[in-house]
Amino acid sequence: MKGKFITLEGGEGSGKSSALEYVKRKLDEDGVRYILTREPGGTPISEEIRSVILDKANTGMDPMTEALLYAASRRQHLVSKVIPALEEGTNVISDRFLDSSLAYQGGARGLGIEKVYALNQYATDGLLPDLTLLFDLDPEKGLERIGENADREVNRLDLEKLSFHKAVRSHFLKLKEMFPERIHVIDASKSREEVGEAAYREIKKVIGNNR
Amino acid sequence: MKGKFITLEGGEGSGKSSALEYVKRKLDEDGVRYILTREPGGTPISEEIRSVILDKANTGMDPMTEALLYAASRRQHLVSKVIPALEEGTNVISDRFLDSSLAYQGGARGLGIEKVYALNQYATDGLLPDLTLLFDLDPEKGLERIGENADREVNRLDLEKLSFHKAVRSHFLKLKEMFPERIHVIDASKSREEVGEAAYREIKKVIGNNR
Repeated sequence: MKGKFITLEGGEGSGKSSALEYVKRKLDEDGVRYILTREPGGTPISEEIRSVILDKANTGMDPMTEALLYAASRRQHLVSKVIPALEEGTNVISDRFLDSSLAYQGGARGLGIEKVYALNQYATDGLLPDLTLLFDLDPEKGLERIGENADREVNRLDLEKLSFHKAVRSHFLKLKEMFPERIHVIDASKSREEVGEAAYREIKKVIGNNR
Repeated sequence: MKGKFITLEGGEGSGKSSALEYVKRKLDEDGVRYILTREPGGTPISEEIRSVILDKANTGMDPMTEALLYAASRRQHLVSKVIPALEEGTNVISDRFLDSSLAYQGGARGLGIEKVYALNQYATDGLLPDLTLLFDLDPEKGLERIGENADREVNRLDLEKLSFHKAVRSHFLKLKEMFPERIHVIDASKSREEVGEAAYREIKKVIGNNR
Protein backbone atom coordinates (compact mmCIF):
# COMPACT_ATOMS: atom_id res chain seq x y z
CA MET A 1 0.00 0.00 0.00
CA LYS A 2 1.16 3.53 -0.71
CA GLY A 3 0.75 5.04 2.78
CA LYS A 4 2.59 3.80 5.86
CA PHE A 5 0.72 2.32 8.80
CA ILE A 6 2.10 3.24 12.23
CA THR A 7 0.64 2.15 15.57
CA LEU A 8 1.27 3.37 19.12
CA GLU A 9 1.05 0.89 21.97
CA GLY A 10 1.61 0.89 25.71
CA GLY A 11 -0.08 0.65 29.09
CA GLU A 12 -2.47 3.14 30.69
CA GLY A 13 -0.83 6.52 31.26
CA SER A 14 2.26 5.67 29.21
CA GLY A 15 2.15 9.04 27.45
CA LYS A 16 0.95 8.04 23.99
CA SER A 17 -1.43 11.00 23.79
CA SER A 18 1.16 13.60 24.75
CA ALA A 19 3.64 12.11 22.31
CA LEU A 20 0.99 12.21 19.60
CA GLU A 21 0.48 15.92 20.15
CA TYR A 22 4.21 16.48 19.69
CA VAL A 23 4.37 14.25 16.63
CA LYS A 24 1.38 15.97 15.09
CA ARG A 25 2.97 19.40 15.43
CA LYS A 26 6.21 18.22 13.81
CA LEU A 27 4.53 16.34 10.96
CA ASP A 28 2.37 19.38 10.22
CA GLU A 29 5.52 21.50 9.98
CA ASP A 30 6.98 18.93 7.59
CA GLY A 31 3.83 18.97 5.44
CA VAL A 32 3.37 15.19 5.71
CA ARG A 33 -0.01 13.78 4.66
CA TYR A 34 -1.38 11.66 7.51
CA ILE A 35 -4.42 10.93 9.64
CA LEU A 36 -4.55 10.22 13.37
CA THR A 37 -7.02 7.62 14.56
CA ARG A 38 -7.57 5.32 17.51
CA GLU A 39 -8.73 1.91 18.63
CA PRO A 40 -11.18 0.83 19.77
CA GLY A 41 -13.09 3.39 17.74
CA GLY A 42 -12.14 5.64 14.87
CA THR A 43 -15.41 5.21 12.96
CA PRO A 44 -19.03 5.67 14.11
CA ILE A 45 -19.71 1.90 14.31
CA SER A 46 -16.37 1.26 16.04
CA GLU A 47 -17.07 4.05 18.53
CA GLU A 48 -20.39 2.40 19.38
CA ILE A 49 -18.52 -0.86 19.99
CA ARG A 50 -15.93 1.05 22.04
CA SER A 51 -18.63 2.30 24.39
CA VAL A 52 -19.80 -1.28 25.03
CA ILE A 53 -16.23 -2.42 25.74
CA LEU A 54 -15.30 0.43 28.07
CA ASP A 55 -18.68 0.72 29.87
CA LYS A 56 -17.88 0.61 33.58
CA ALA A 57 -21.13 -1.30 34.21
CA ASN A 58 -19.93 -4.27 32.14
CA THR A 59 -17.75 -5.85 34.82
CA GLY A 60 -19.03 -9.36 34.03
CA MET A 61 -17.59 -9.35 30.52
CA ASP A 62 -15.94 -12.62 29.52
CA PRO A 63 -12.34 -12.19 28.22
CA MET A 64 -13.20 -13.86 24.90
CA THR A 65 -16.26 -11.60 24.48
CA GLU A 66 -13.90 -8.68 24.98
CA ALA A 67 -11.40 -10.06 22.43
CA LEU A 68 -14.20 -10.58 19.87
CA LEU A 69 -15.51 -7.03 20.40
CA TYR A 70 -12.05 -5.55 19.90
CA ALA A 71 -11.68 -7.63 16.74
CA ALA A 72 -15.08 -6.40 15.46
CA SER A 73 -14.16 -2.79 16.14
CA ARG A 74 -10.76 -3.32 14.48
CA ARG A 75 -12.34 -4.84 11.39
CA GLN A 76 -14.67 -1.91 10.82
CA HIS A 77 -11.93 0.62 11.50
CA LEU A 78 -9.59 -1.05 8.99
CA VAL A 79 -12.15 -1.51 6.24
CA SER A 80 -13.83 1.87 6.41
CA LYS A 81 -10.95 4.15 7.41
CA VAL A 82 -7.39 2.77 7.63
CA ILE A 83 -7.12 0.76 4.41
CA PRO A 84 -8.80 3.38 2.15
CA ALA A 85 -6.38 6.01 3.51
CA LEU A 86 -3.30 3.80 3.02
CA GLU A 87 -4.42 2.95 -0.50
CA GLU A 88 -4.65 6.58 -1.54
CA GLY A 89 -1.18 7.26 -0.10
CA THR A 90 -2.09 8.84 3.24
CA ASN A 91 -0.02 7.71 6.23
CA VAL A 92 -2.09 6.41 9.14
CA ILE A 93 -1.09 6.72 12.81
CA SER A 94 -3.32 4.73 15.14
CA ASP A 95 -3.39 4.99 18.93
CA ARG A 96 -3.54 1.22 19.68
CA PHE A 97 -4.08 -1.72 17.32
CA LEU A 98 -3.56 -5.50 17.28
CA ASP A 99 -0.77 -5.60 19.89
CA SER A 100 -3.12 -4.23 22.54
CA SER A 101 -5.40 -7.24 22.04
CA LEU A 102 -2.39 -9.56 22.23
CA ALA A 103 -1.06 -7.99 25.44
CA TYR A 104 -4.37 -7.33 27.23
CA GLN A 105 -6.64 -10.23 26.25
CA GLY A 106 -3.98 -12.67 25.07
CA GLY A 107 -1.52 -12.00 27.88
CA ALA A 108 -3.00 -10.30 30.93
CA ARG A 109 -6.44 -11.92 30.64
CA GLY A 110 -4.85 -15.29 29.96
CA LEU A 111 -6.43 -16.26 26.61
CA GLY A 112 -2.99 -16.83 25.08
CA ILE A 113 -1.19 -14.60 22.59
CA GLU A 114 -1.34 -17.23 19.81
CA LYS A 115 -5.08 -17.74 20.19
CA VAL A 116 -5.86 -14.02 20.08
CA TYR A 117 -3.48 -13.59 17.14
CA ALA A 118 -5.27 -16.34 15.20
CA LEU A 119 -8.69 -14.86 16.01
CA ASN A 120 -7.54 -11.46 14.77
CA GLN A 121 -6.70 -12.83 11.33
CA TYR A 122 -10.48 -12.67 10.71
CA ALA A 123 -10.37 -8.95 11.46
CA THR A 124 -7.13 -7.95 9.72
CA ASP A 125 -6.68 -10.46 6.89
CA GLY A 126 -3.04 -10.48 8.00
CA LEU A 127 -2.36 -6.74 7.74
CA LEU A 128 0.41 -5.64 10.14
CA PRO A 129 1.74 -2.11 10.80
CA ASP A 130 4.92 -0.91 9.12
CA LEU A 131 6.06 0.39 12.51
CA THR A 132 4.79 -0.01 16.07
CA LEU A 133 6.03 2.29 18.83
CA LEU A 134 5.82 0.66 22.24
CA PHE A 135 5.72 3.26 25.04
CA ASP A 136 7.26 1.35 27.90
CA LEU A 137 6.68 2.56 31.46
CA ASP A 138 6.43 1.12 34.97
CA PRO A 139 2.64 0.81 35.47
CA GLU A 140 2.84 2.39 38.92
CA LYS A 141 4.06 5.57 37.25
CA GLY A 142 1.47 5.26 34.50
CA LEU A 143 -1.45 4.97 36.89
CA GLU A 144 -0.05 7.90 38.90
CA ARG A 145 -0.09 10.03 35.74
CA ILE A 146 -3.71 9.10 35.03
CA GLY A 147 -4.64 10.15 38.56
CA GLU A 148 -3.08 13.56 37.96
CA ASN A 149 -4.94 14.11 34.70
CA ALA A 150 -8.34 15.47 35.68
CA ASP A 151 -9.54 15.68 32.04
CA ARG A 152 -9.21 11.95 31.39
CA GLU A 153 -12.31 9.91 32.05
CA VAL A 154 -11.68 6.73 34.03
CA ASN A 155 -12.79 3.62 32.10
CA ARG A 156 -13.30 -0.07 32.91
CA LEU A 157 -9.68 -1.00 32.14
CA ASP A 158 -8.25 1.74 34.38
CA LEU A 159 -10.05 0.08 37.29
CA GLU A 160 -8.05 -3.15 37.03
CA LYS A 161 -5.56 -4.04 39.74
CA LEU A 162 -1.88 -3.11 39.50
CA SER A 163 -0.96 -6.78 38.91
CA PHE A 164 -3.06 -6.68 35.72
CA HIS A 165 -1.22 -3.64 34.40
CA LYS A 166 2.12 -5.27 35.26
CA ALA A 167 1.10 -8.33 33.25
CA VAL A 168 0.14 -6.07 30.33
CA ARG A 169 3.59 -4.50 30.38
CA SER A 170 5.46 -7.81 30.47
CA HIS A 171 3.40 -9.14 27.56
CA PHE A 172 4.06 -6.02 25.51
CA LEU A 173 7.77 -6.64 26.05
CA LYS A 174 7.29 -10.26 24.99
CA LEU A 175 5.71 -8.99 21.76
CA LYS A 176 8.84 -6.92 21.12
CA GLU A 177 10.77 -10.22 21.20
CA MET A 178 8.25 -11.84 18.83
CA PHE A 179 8.28 -8.94 16.34
CA PRO A 180 11.72 -7.33 16.79
CA GLU A 181 11.72 -5.65 13.36
CA ARG A 182 8.28 -4.09 13.57
CA ILE A 183 8.17 -3.00 17.23
CA HIS A 184 10.38 -0.19 18.50
CA VAL A 185 10.47 0.41 22.27
CA ILE A 186 10.41 3.99 23.56
CA ASP A 187 11.47 4.73 27.14
CA ALA A 188 8.36 6.57 28.32
CA SER A 189 9.83 7.52 31.69
CA LYS A 190 11.72 10.40 30.07
CA SER A 191 10.43 13.95 29.68
CA ARG A 192 7.47 14.70 27.40
CA GLU A 193 9.75 16.48 24.98
CA GLU A 194 12.23 13.60 24.80
CA VAL A 195 9.51 10.97 24.40
CA GLY A 196 7.76 13.00 21.71
CA GLU A 197 11.00 13.59 19.83
CA ALA A 198 11.96 9.89 19.96
CA ALA A 199 8.53 8.94 18.57
CA TYR A 200 8.76 11.55 15.82
CA ARG A 201 12.26 10.39 14.77
CA GLU A 202 11.17 6.75 14.38
CA ILE A 203 8.05 7.72 12.46
CA LYS A 204 10.05 9.89 10.09
CA LYS A 205 12.44 7.00 9.36
CA VAL A 206 9.49 4.91 8.16
CA ILE A 207 7.56 7.63 6.36
CA GLY A 208 10.70 8.96 4.68
CA ASN A 209 9.74 11.13 1.75
CA ASN A 210 6.26 9.59 1.59
CA ARG A 211 4.34 12.81 1.94
CA MET B 1 -24.41 -31.30 30.40
CA LYS B 2 -27.58 -32.09 32.29
CA GLY B 3 -30.03 -29.75 30.52
CA LYS B 4 -30.82 -29.93 26.82
CA PHE B 5 -29.96 -27.09 24.48
CA ILE B 6 -32.53 -26.35 21.77
CA THR B 7 -32.31 -23.60 19.17
CA LEU B 8 -34.90 -22.13 16.80
CA GLU B 9 -33.77 -20.87 13.41
CA GLY B 10 -35.40 -19.43 10.30
CA GLY B 11 -35.81 -16.32 8.19
CA GLU B 12 -37.62 -13.11 9.11
CA GLY B 13 -41.31 -13.69 9.77
CA SER B 14 -41.00 -17.47 9.77
CA GLY B 15 -43.15 -17.75 12.89
CA LYS B 16 -40.57 -18.67 15.52
CA SER B 17 -42.08 -16.30 18.06
CA SER B 18 -45.64 -17.61 17.67
CA ALA B 19 -44.40 -21.17 17.89
CA LEU B 20 -42.45 -20.28 21.03
CA GLU B 21 -45.63 -19.01 22.68
CA TYR B 22 -47.34 -22.32 21.93
CA VAL B 23 -44.35 -24.35 23.11
CA LYS B 24 -44.10 -22.32 26.29
CA ARG B 25 -47.74 -22.98 27.20
CA LYS B 26 -47.36 -26.72 26.65
CA LEU B 27 -44.06 -27.04 28.52
CA ASP B 28 -45.54 -25.12 31.45
CA GLU B 29 -48.44 -27.59 31.55
CA ASP B 30 -45.91 -30.44 31.55
CA GLY B 31 -43.96 -28.85 34.40
CA VAL B 32 -40.70 -28.90 32.44
CA ARG B 33 -37.82 -26.81 33.79
CA TYR B 34 -36.58 -24.51 31.03
CA ILE B 35 -35.61 -20.97 30.12
CA LEU B 36 -36.34 -19.07 26.91
CA THR B 37 -33.67 -16.78 25.59
CA ARG B 38 -32.61 -15.15 22.34
CA GLU B 39 -29.70 -14.12 20.15
CA PRO B 40 -28.27 -11.64 19.64
CA GLY B 41 -28.96 -10.65 23.25
CA GLY B 42 -30.14 -12.59 26.24
CA THR B 43 -27.85 -10.85 28.75
CA PRO B 44 -27.28 -7.11 29.43
CA ILE B 45 -23.91 -7.04 27.62
CA SER B 46 -25.28 -9.08 24.71
CA GLU B 47 -28.30 -6.79 24.45
CA GLU B 48 -25.95 -3.80 24.17
CA ILE B 49 -24.14 -5.58 21.35
CA ARG B 50 -27.52 -6.42 19.77
CA SER B 51 -28.42 -2.76 19.59
CA VAL B 52 -25.18 -1.99 17.71
CA ILE B 53 -25.83 -4.84 15.25
CA LEU B 54 -29.46 -3.99 14.55
CA ASP B 55 -29.10 -0.17 14.55
CA LYS B 56 -30.70 1.02 11.31
CA ALA B 57 -28.08 3.79 11.07
CA ASN B 58 -25.25 1.26 10.72
CA THR B 59 -25.74 0.52 7.02
CA GLY B 60 -22.00 0.67 6.32
CA MET B 61 -21.24 -2.33 8.52
CA ASP B 62 -18.72 -4.74 7.01
CA PRO B 63 -19.96 -8.39 6.89
CA MET B 64 -16.99 -9.62 8.94
CA THR B 65 -17.59 -6.90 11.56
CA GLU B 66 -21.15 -8.18 11.77
CA ALA B 67 -19.97 -11.79 12.12
CA LEU B 68 -17.52 -10.82 14.89
CA LEU B 69 -20.22 -8.88 16.76
CA TYR B 70 -22.61 -11.84 16.62
CA ALA B 71 -19.81 -14.08 17.88
CA ALA B 72 -19.08 -11.67 20.76
CA SER B 73 -22.75 -11.53 21.73
CA ARG B 74 -22.96 -15.33 21.48
CA ARG B 75 -19.92 -15.82 23.68
CA GLN B 76 -21.29 -13.67 26.48
CA HIS B 77 -24.73 -15.25 26.23
CA LEU B 78 -23.27 -18.76 26.45
CA VAL B 79 -20.89 -18.07 29.31
CA SER B 80 -23.18 -16.04 31.51
CA LYS B 81 -26.57 -17.62 30.83
CA VAL B 82 -26.84 -20.73 28.64
CA ILE B 83 -24.04 -22.91 30.02
CA PRO B 84 -24.78 -22.22 33.72
CA ALA B 85 -28.44 -23.19 33.10
CA LEU B 86 -27.54 -26.37 31.22
CA GLU B 87 -25.08 -27.35 33.94
CA GLU B 88 -27.68 -27.12 36.67
CA GLY B 89 -30.09 -29.22 34.60
CA THR B 90 -32.34 -26.51 33.15
CA ASN B 91 -33.28 -26.92 29.49
CA VAL B 92 -32.49 -23.89 27.34
CA ILE B 93 -34.49 -22.82 24.28
CA SER B 94 -32.83 -20.05 22.28
CA ASP B 95 -34.43 -18.02 19.51
CA ARG B 96 -31.46 -18.12 17.05
CA PHE B 97 -27.89 -19.32 17.60
CA LEU B 98 -24.88 -20.35 15.51
CA ASP B 99 -26.83 -21.41 12.40
CA SER B 100 -28.09 -17.85 11.91
CA SER B 101 -24.49 -16.65 11.62
CA LEU B 102 -23.73 -19.44 9.17
CA ALA B 103 -26.78 -18.71 6.98
CA TYR B 104 -26.73 -14.90 7.16
CA GLN B 105 -23.06 -13.91 7.30
CA GLY B 106 -21.54 -17.14 5.99
CA GLY B 107 -24.10 -17.70 3.23
CA ALA B 108 -26.12 -14.63 2.27
CA ARG B 109 -23.33 -12.11 2.94
CA GLY B 110 -20.82 -14.35 1.18
CA LEU B 111 -18.16 -14.84 3.87
CA GLY B 112 -18.39 -18.62 3.50
CA ILE B 113 -20.05 -21.08 5.90
CA GLU B 114 -16.73 -22.78 6.77
CA LYS B 115 -15.02 -19.50 7.60
CA VAL B 116 -17.84 -18.30 9.87
CA TYR B 117 -18.02 -21.75 11.48
CA ALA B 118 -14.28 -21.65 12.25
CA LEU B 119 -14.54 -18.11 13.65
CA ASN B 120 -17.39 -19.18 15.92
CA GLN B 121 -15.29 -21.84 17.57
CA TYR B 122 -13.75 -18.95 19.53
CA ALA B 123 -17.22 -18.08 20.81
CA THR B 124 -18.63 -21.55 21.46
CA ASP B 125 -15.62 -23.76 22.21
CA GLY B 126 -17.41 -26.28 19.99
CA LEU B 127 -20.73 -26.41 21.83
CA LEU B 128 -23.62 -27.36 19.50
CA PRO B 129 -27.35 -27.60 20.28
CA ASP B 130 -28.94 -30.98 21.02
CA LEU B 131 -31.73 -30.01 18.62
CA THR B 132 -32.23 -27.19 16.13
CA LEU B 133 -35.68 -26.48 14.70
CA LEU B 134 -35.51 -24.82 11.30
CA PHE B 135 -38.71 -22.90 10.50
CA ASP B 136 -38.75 -23.04 6.73
CA LEU B 137 -40.87 -20.56 4.80
CA ASP B 138 -40.87 -18.80 1.44
CA PRO B 139 -39.35 -15.38 2.30
CA GLU B 140 -42.05 -13.56 0.36
CA LYS B 141 -44.59 -14.94 2.81
CA GLY B 142 -42.31 -14.21 5.75
CA LEU B 143 -41.86 -10.55 4.84
CA GLU B 144 -45.62 -10.27 4.25
CA ARG B 145 -46.22 -11.52 7.79
CA ILE B 146 -43.77 -8.96 9.24
CA GLY B 147 -45.64 -6.20 7.39
CA GLU B 148 -48.89 -7.32 9.01
CA ASN B 149 -47.42 -7.32 12.51
CA ALA B 150 -47.65 -3.72 13.69
CA ASP B 151 -46.01 -4.50 17.06
CA ARG B 152 -42.76 -5.68 15.56
CA GLU B 153 -40.10 -3.03 15.17
CA VAL B 154 -38.38 -3.07 11.78
CA ASN B 155 -34.60 -3.58 12.10
CA ARG B 156 -31.61 -3.32 9.79
CA LEU B 157 -31.90 -6.91 8.56
CA ASP B 158 -35.60 -6.56 7.68
CA LEU B 159 -34.60 -3.83 5.26
CA GLU B 160 -32.53 -6.16 3.07
CA LYS B 161 -33.74 -7.02 -0.41
CA LEU B 162 -35.82 -10.11 -1.14
CA SER B 163 -32.85 -11.75 -2.89
CA PHE B 164 -30.94 -11.56 0.41
CA HIS B 165 -33.73 -13.34 2.30
CA LYS B 166 -33.92 -15.99 -0.43
CA ALA B 167 -30.20 -16.62 -0.06
CA VAL B 168 -30.66 -16.94 3.71
CA ARG B 169 -33.32 -19.60 3.19
CA SER B 170 -31.27 -21.63 0.74
CA HIS B 171 -28.27 -21.58 3.09
CA PHE B 172 -30.40 -22.69 6.01
CA LEU B 173 -31.48 -25.66 3.89
CA LYS B 174 -27.83 -26.34 3.06
CA LEU B 175 -27.11 -26.46 6.80
CA LYS B 176 -29.80 -29.11 7.17
CA GLU B 177 -27.75 -31.23 4.72
CA MET B 178 -24.55 -30.56 6.67
CA PHE B 179 -26.10 -31.38 10.08
CA PRO B 180 -28.94 -33.83 9.28
CA GLU B 181 -29.07 -35.31 12.78
CA ARG B 182 -29.17 -32.06 14.68
CA ILE B 183 -31.41 -29.92 12.46
CA HIS B 184 -35.11 -30.72 12.07
CA VAL B 185 -37.06 -28.78 9.42
CA ILE B 186 -40.55 -27.51 10.26
CA ASP B 187 -42.91 -26.48 7.47
CA ALA B 188 -43.74 -22.97 8.64
CA SER B 189 -46.37 -22.35 5.97
CA LYS B 190 -48.91 -24.36 7.98
CA SER B 191 -51.27 -22.91 10.59
CA ARG B 192 -49.93 -21.42 13.82
CA GLU B 193 -51.39 -24.32 15.76
CA GLU B 194 -49.82 -26.97 13.51
CA VAL B 195 -46.42 -25.26 13.50
CA GLY B 196 -46.48 -24.82 17.29
CA GLU B 197 -47.51 -28.44 17.82
CA ALA B 198 -44.78 -29.75 15.49
CA ALA B 199 -42.17 -27.71 17.36
CA TYR B 200 -43.44 -28.90 20.72
CA ARG B 201 -43.37 -32.57 19.66
CA GLU B 202 -39.74 -32.40 18.52
CA ILE B 203 -38.67 -30.58 21.65
CA LYS B 204 -40.38 -33.16 23.86
CA LYS B 205 -38.57 -35.99 22.07
CA VAL B 206 -35.23 -34.44 23.02
CA ILE B 207 -36.13 -33.29 26.52
CA GLY B 208 -37.80 -36.60 27.35
CA ASN B 209 -38.17 -36.95 31.07
CA ASN B 210 -35.51 -34.34 31.71
CA ARG B 211 -37.63 -32.04 33.83
